[in-house]
Amino acid sequence: MNHGIQVLRSHPKSPPQSVEECIQACLDCLLACTACADACLAEDDVTAMSGCIRLDAACAAACGATVQLLVSSGTTGNHVALKAQLKACLEACNTCEQECRSHAGHHDHCEHCADACNACASACEVTLKTLN
Amino acid sequence: MNHGIQVLRSHPKSPPQSVEECIQACLDCLLACTACADACLAEDDVTAMSGCIRLDAACAAACGATVQLLVSSGTTGNHVALKAQLKACLEACNTCEQECRSHAGHHDHCEHCADACNACASACEVTLKTLN
Amino acid sequence: MNHGIQVLRSHPKSPPQSVEECIQACLDCLLACTACADACLAEDDVTAMSGCIRLDAACAAACGATVQLLVSSGTTGNHVALKAQLKACLEACNTCEQECRSHAGHHDHCEHCADACNACASACEVTLKTLN
Amino acid sequence: MNHGIQVLRSHPKSPPQSVEECIQACLDCLLACTACADACLAEDDVTAMSGCIRLDAACAAACGATVQLLVSSGTTGNHVALKAQLKACLEACNTCEQECRSHAGHHDHCEHCADACNACASACEVTLKTLN
Repeated sequence: MNHGIQVLRSHPKSPPQSVEECIQACLDCLLACTACADACLAEDDVTAMSGCIRLDAACAAACGATVQLLVSSGTTGNHVALKAQLKACLEACNTCEQECRSHAGHHDHCEHCADACNACASACEVTLKTLN
Repeated sequence: MNHGIQVLRSHPKSPPQSVEECIQACLDCLLACTACADACLAEDDVTAMSGCIRLDAACAAACGATVQLLVSSGTTGNHVALKAQLKACLEACNTCEQECRSHAGHHDHCEHCADACNACASACEVTLKTLN
Repeated sequence: MNHGIQVLRSHPKSPPQSVEECIQACLDCLLACTACADACLAEDDVTAMSGCIRLDAACAAACGATVQLLVSSGTTGNHVALKAQLKACLEACNTCEQECRSHAGHHDHCEHCADACNACASACEVTLKTLN
Repeated sequence: MNHGIQVLRSHPKSPPQSVEECIQACLDCLLACTACADACLAEDDVTAMSGCIRLDAACAAACGATVQLLVSSGTTGNHVALKAQLKACLEACNTCEQECRSHAGHHDHCEHCADACNACASACEVTLKTLN
């Protein structure tokens, strides 16, 4: 994320550190969920993983949208839509983490994905607190 | 949207009509916002349109994520994340509509985009009411 | 897609009909593939559908990117990236159609999704021929 | 990208290092282009930057689709669609880099974005060579 962060930091109105960290957590979680869904499809017990695959897809989509909102709302004074999107991302992460955590004992990718969701939910929560 | 709707209707747990209509409204709004942003970039007064371009991009992203959540949450009993995403989409649409409406007098694409945002926000609101 | 198309048509440099139709085919295919993946996850034979779910996700992603390229490249003279993306979309559609068609006998959603992929691939092919 | 990479590495068929690095380059470039577009909108000479904003949006979309294809095609033997998407991403990166590089003298974010595009194009090229 080297170049991307440098672009953010050379933005005429570069975002605060909390937003920068939240963007990174969302992109990490987007990758984790996309890869976890595909990993679940490669497991022998794919039927038992259908809920996980579904929540992974939903969470990845929410994270992707949140990155766009974080970048494009940072410079405006109106944070209503950004805050609502952060809450949506937080809920998608929480739901996905819960499901992934229940599979963490037998699938390492679910454990790492649950960690990604947890980190992303926390980052959304921190950012929400900094926005008026 | 012919084939897409037919896929939805042949899903083992096909969604209610409100969800189907909300998905269509989100995809319509995604296209409207994507095209409005590009149209604004082709206008002579692009500087005055920078806020509109930014909100278009945010709204398109929120609509895209909402389509995924509407499709993949329809079959599960837990609607917490879906409801939060519908609220986020509604707010993104409201914010974008307000900006686009202010340019409707001199840019037809902004007027049509405002209409798309309005229709999408309404569809999200209707769907929110049907979810427990 | 009413409002979205109206935005396209009020763009200062509104795209030719082939591009407009290709955008609609891509959005239709995006929805078809997203819904087919979720439908496959709801079937009893989900293990046998894992390849289909995977290709659906890939095709939906390619279609989404192609919409953005079609909208944002239409007004520029340089079509190299747009043409490459149309070819990528065409290949993703072909691969997904082939898999979905093989399940069309027992899953109606796969049949409709195969039709969406076929229509989208054709639209990409037509648009490719119109670009120099 | 810590958790996301760990998910990839615990995938039953974890991808080769070239794919892993290409995924990271695509996500870095996605962020760079998304942020560069927004930064351009915040510059005084936004009219002169309209082409850059447009190419940023196209490149970000191509990068996002490529991540999905890289993740979901890694485990299958058929690489036709993945290779076409890698070529599309490479072209989008090349086009965007060229435009951003022309603004590098007066906008640091364009310089960093050009570097991101260059790194991503290289990663796509390397990955293309490893696929049969």
